[in-house]
Amino acid sequence: MSLLVVGTVAFDAIETPFGKTDKIVGGAASYIALASSYFTKNIHLVSVIGDDFPESFLNTLKKEGVNLDGLEIKKGEKSFFWSGKYHNDLNSRDTLITELNVLADFKPIVPPAAKEVEFLMLGNLAPAVQMSVINQMTKRPKLIVLDTMNFWMDIAMDELMKVIAVIDVLTINDAEARQLSGEYSLVKAAQKILKMGPKTLVIKKGEHGALLFHADEVFFAPALPLEEVYDPTGAGDSFAGGFIGYLAKTKDISFENMKNAIIFGSALASFTVEKFGTERLIGLSQKDVEERVQEFVDLVQFDIALY
Amino acid sequence: MSLLVVGTVAFDAIETPFGKTDKIVGGAASYIALASSYFTKNIHLVSVIGDDFPESFLNTLKKEGVNLDGLEIKKGEKSFFWSGKYHNDLNSRDTLITELNVLADFKPIVPPAAKEVEFLMLGNLAPAVQMSVINQMTKRPKLIVLDTMNFWMDIAMDELMKVIAVIDVLTINDAEARQLSGEYSLVKAAQKILKMGPKTLVIKKGEHGALLFHADEVFFAPALPLEEVYDPTGAGDSFAGGFIGYLAKTKDISFENMKNAIIFGSALASFTVEKFGTERLIGLSQKDVEERVQEFVDLVQFDIALY
Repeated sequence: MSLLVVGTVAFDAIETPFGKTDKIVGGAASYIALASSYFTKNIHLVSVIGDDFPESFLNTLKKEGVNLDGLEIKKGEKSFFWSGKYHNDLNSRDTLITELNVLADFKPIVPPAAKEVEFLMLGNLAPAVQMSVINQMTKRPKLIVLDTMNFWMDIAMDELMKVIAVIDVLTINDAEARQLSGEYSLVKAAQKILKMGPKTLVIKKGEHGALLFHADEVFFAPALPLEEVYDPTGAGDSFAGGFIGYLAKTKDISFENMKNAIIFGSALASFTVEKFGTERLIGLSQKDVEERVQEFVDLVQFDIALY
Repeated sequence: MSLLVVGTVAFDAIETPFGKTDKIVGGAASYIALASSYFTKNIHLVSVIGDDFPESFLNTLKKEGVNLDGLEIKKGEKSFFWSGKYHNDLNSRDTLITELNVLADFKPIVPPAAKEVEFLMLGNLAPAVQMSVINQMTKRPKLIVLDTMNFWMDIAMDELMKVIAVIDVLTINDAEARQLSGEYSLVKAAQKILKMGPKTLVIKKGEHGALLFHADEVFFAPALPLEEVYDPTGAGDSFAGGFIGYLAKTKDISFENMKNAIIFGSALASFTVEKFGTERLIGLSQKDVEERVQEFVDLVQFDIALY
């Protein structure tokens, strides 16, 4: 089924305890589109870049089935740039540089062919920008998934609440779930957030896995214990891309199938963190992905005989 | 099968964001013995208390099948007392008071009837004290499980390494696994620790579940997302008690069965944290435990159709 991905396509410069990079390709929509391309080749991308962006990466996206008609390229301007340094535990980071550049006045325009997609993935952006995308759809998508972050809770809570009210699935991390709800218990936080609009909530806990809440049900997907995590950048976006890509492929948005989608999302994220940037997320085989999913099955599968 | 539990039986005074207690019954061996009593009634306890300890709690233990022949009661002396205050996230705490009292010169004496038990659970104590128990066994137990903590890594690493070398299963938390191995990655940490002696390693991650490592295999058990966690005290000990109790009941120490044991241990721990102290761990029905285990099954069960 058709999928529209909206978010940043950008440059990152990343430092982790394992090394540092110069400017490399990043951005939420880059990770989301790559991850979802393992499941569907009917992907539209809406984003904005400057004319400094490498043609090679755009060709990679095209090759993977990503339609770039909605990618605005601003002549004479520079792409969004973020630089950050991760702490030793990789669970926290400091932002060193944020150059909005083309993102400063980004007004996404959804191309006609993408206005009736069945799946819409709104990567982390200003809530008003996310809302403007929803408003351009001529047919309500079957599923709208939205990712956001604490930054927007700090400075644009009213707009965030408005867009959260009209989506289907919200993906945030545990600290953000606590901030949004004012509840420390994630179970209580989820109960409150599900009353704000979304029918389903995904709470991402990084190396501690992810929780999926829907009505009174909850599902937990672990993160794979990895020998090396080089760079967590893009893990959440790869997760979201795998999640919505799997749903778009299987055309089944039931809670039961969302469990599977969470596992596939976690599998894609587990590749992303093994190298810097998008490198590991490009060129995986179907077998690679299936084997990784099997590792998740093995990790949590048990066979209790109740006594 | 027969089980020997060695550890503290003590008083705690606990403050959490949800309230505080006066002196209540605590101690590693109290939680371990209670949790394991849901699986076997052939339990020996070796510990030491003063004459200030409530008879009613000792009667509870007896009623649950715990043989107290190895419980030394020192006349005119006071029981071990610990007081602590948990931070808002419940993941860290400050120790306010530690009064060793009878524990200061604790020399455990294993009663004759307990010297040939098949399962030995060494709760957190000085490594030399744990070793003295192993040395008193006239027959090597089928399984020795040892719990320890960072404190002993700081002040008695040599003795800790000696006792770790002769046990079967080590249970520590994630920070302790990192300290013991010098590796941040838990996978690498486990590889190193498994070379120190134990055939199996359990890494407890509190609200983030537990990892079971054995040879090249790994299993993950989540913690149940709970609406309220009142008091984490004793969760790790309840986990250990459920773990070894289930193994003693089923008489199967294979990796496959240890997965089940981890789930039962997690289930017992999930009860403990719902109230202060040992309160919630007393008087559960078999149905209570089975229903809780079913919640774990529901939490992680998925049925992936590989595409």
